Amino acid sequence: MTNIPDSHPRKSSLLSRQKIVDGAKRGLLADSAMIAHGRGEAYDYLLGERTTSSASIAIREAAARLLRAVSPVISMNGNSTVLAGAEAIKIAAIVGCPIEVNIYYRTEERMTRLVNELESMREELLASSPRAERDAISRVEILGLVSDGRIRGLEGPRSLCSADGIEKADVVLVPLEDGDRCEALIALGKEVIAIDLNPLSRTSRTATVTIVDEVSRALSGIVNELHSKPEPSIWDNKNTLKDALEVMGNSYLRI
Amino acid sequence: MTNIPDSHPRKSSLLSRQKIVDGAKRGLLADSAMIAHGRGEAYDYLLGERTTSSASIAIREAAARLLRAVSPVISMNGNSTVLAGAEAIKIAAIVGCPIEVNIYYRTEERMTRLVNELESMREELLASSPRAERDAISRVEILGLVSDGRIRGLEGPRSLCSADGIEKADVVLVPLEDGDRCEALIALGKEVIAIDLNPLSRTSRTATVTIVDEVSRALSGIVNELHSKPEPSIWDNKNTLKDALEVMGNSYLRI
Repeated sequence: MTNIPDSHPRKSSLLSRQKIVDGAKRGLLADSAMIAHGRGEAYDYLLGERTTSSASIAIREAAARLLRAVSPVISMNGNSTVLAGAEAIKIAAIVGCPIEVNIYYRTEERMTRLVNELESMREELLASSPRAERDAISRVEILGLVSDGRIRGLEGPRSLCSADGIEKADVVLVPLEDGDRCEALIALGKEVIAIDLNPLSRTSRTATVTIVDEVSRALSGIVNELHSKPEPSIWDNKNTLKDALEVMGNSYLRI
Repeated sequence: MTNIPDSHPRKSSLLSRQKIVDGAKRGLLADSAMIAHGRGEAYDYLLGERTTSSASIAIREAAARLLRAVSPVISMNGNSTVLAGAEAIKIAAIVGCPIEVNIYYRTEERMTRLVNELESMREELLASSPRAERDAISRVEILGLVSDGRIRGLEGPRSLCSADGIEKADVVLVPLEDGDRCEALIALGKEVIAIDLNPLSRTSRTATVTIVDEVSRALSGIVNELHSKPEPSIWDNKNTLKDALEVMGNSYLRI
């Protein structure tokens, strides 16, 4: 890991970049994962690399809907695992739901590596957590290797999922989702809570609740909100997207 | 190369992405080059993946200043070579200037690969060009392997350059430049024409003329403008940056 001084104004962005470069070297990521990360960096730069007030409200809504759900699941890919796997496990422990590894460019090798990565993150979290939280953490299931479910409306390997995870879920929390898959999940009547830094992406526009924020900030935010047990509201998703774009547009004031 | 239908609205962006993925596999790019490309994709997406009217004016200004220069040079790195090496060679042939490979993470291996890549692009261009243009193309020098010059104000390998290229240049056209190097070149009294999709980057703010546009569109645009022999103007660079950010900010109207 490169040594970045604490005083560097963009330290957390540079540390995330390093996690992605390392994750790529370790074979956890798809070929184009670094490009996707770069896109996220750019949007985050325009946001000012902070959680906006409208993203905070979306984070609260996400926490509320995960708590109300009958069968929630957290769908993780390579980038989200590398950047925020531990936060996803914390959410799963509090909500009492499984995590499912589900990737766009599916290979058995990468699926196994990502499941192993999340399992070792769970062990680390267990070791560093207070006794009262350990039981819930140790019960977090990491699904994905057994693809006994299907996402109807998708073709080929992209349709594979876990029967106990995405297939039966009513609410799917999915950081960094592909547009096709988001549309298919919505068409199946599921609520999709997406985390996406591009407010114009198909996923952002299609999801039930879109959190326009960097994935580790968004997942940490959900962990915090879960403790206050929020209630779902009537949600206008277009509003949160417009607000994010306005913040980006106003970034010219920083020149 | 993946097969992308002609009708795809984002075809040229997807082809560029594929060039970067292939370039990385061929060892032409630095570790973080794909991340840098992704950042560019995001800004370009917000621009609407087209050359804005203010970028067109900056492109014209760039052409004018290259024509007026006494010793112009085009500085190329891995990403710009992969995305638009042929366009750079066309500009060099019309202006009658050298191209210098100059990279931030300098290794002799990558320098050699990039010089070879540009030389083979020059041969391809030669073979496909009308007879009248061949002489000028064949005279385009690809500098960089001999680092007999220095960029004063920089330390270590980043200070290396060619004496006949960047060191003696009065105007440097540099796509995708690092902020430190841009500042050092400006401090040496050189004019820097930068191509950078992030209007807020240090390079964008420091350069003499910033073209906020995708590199292959910008370089193709310069080739076209050179034919009309434009004259330099009194240039307000801040204006072009503000305009680019306003276009990005207005992208919310597309929701």
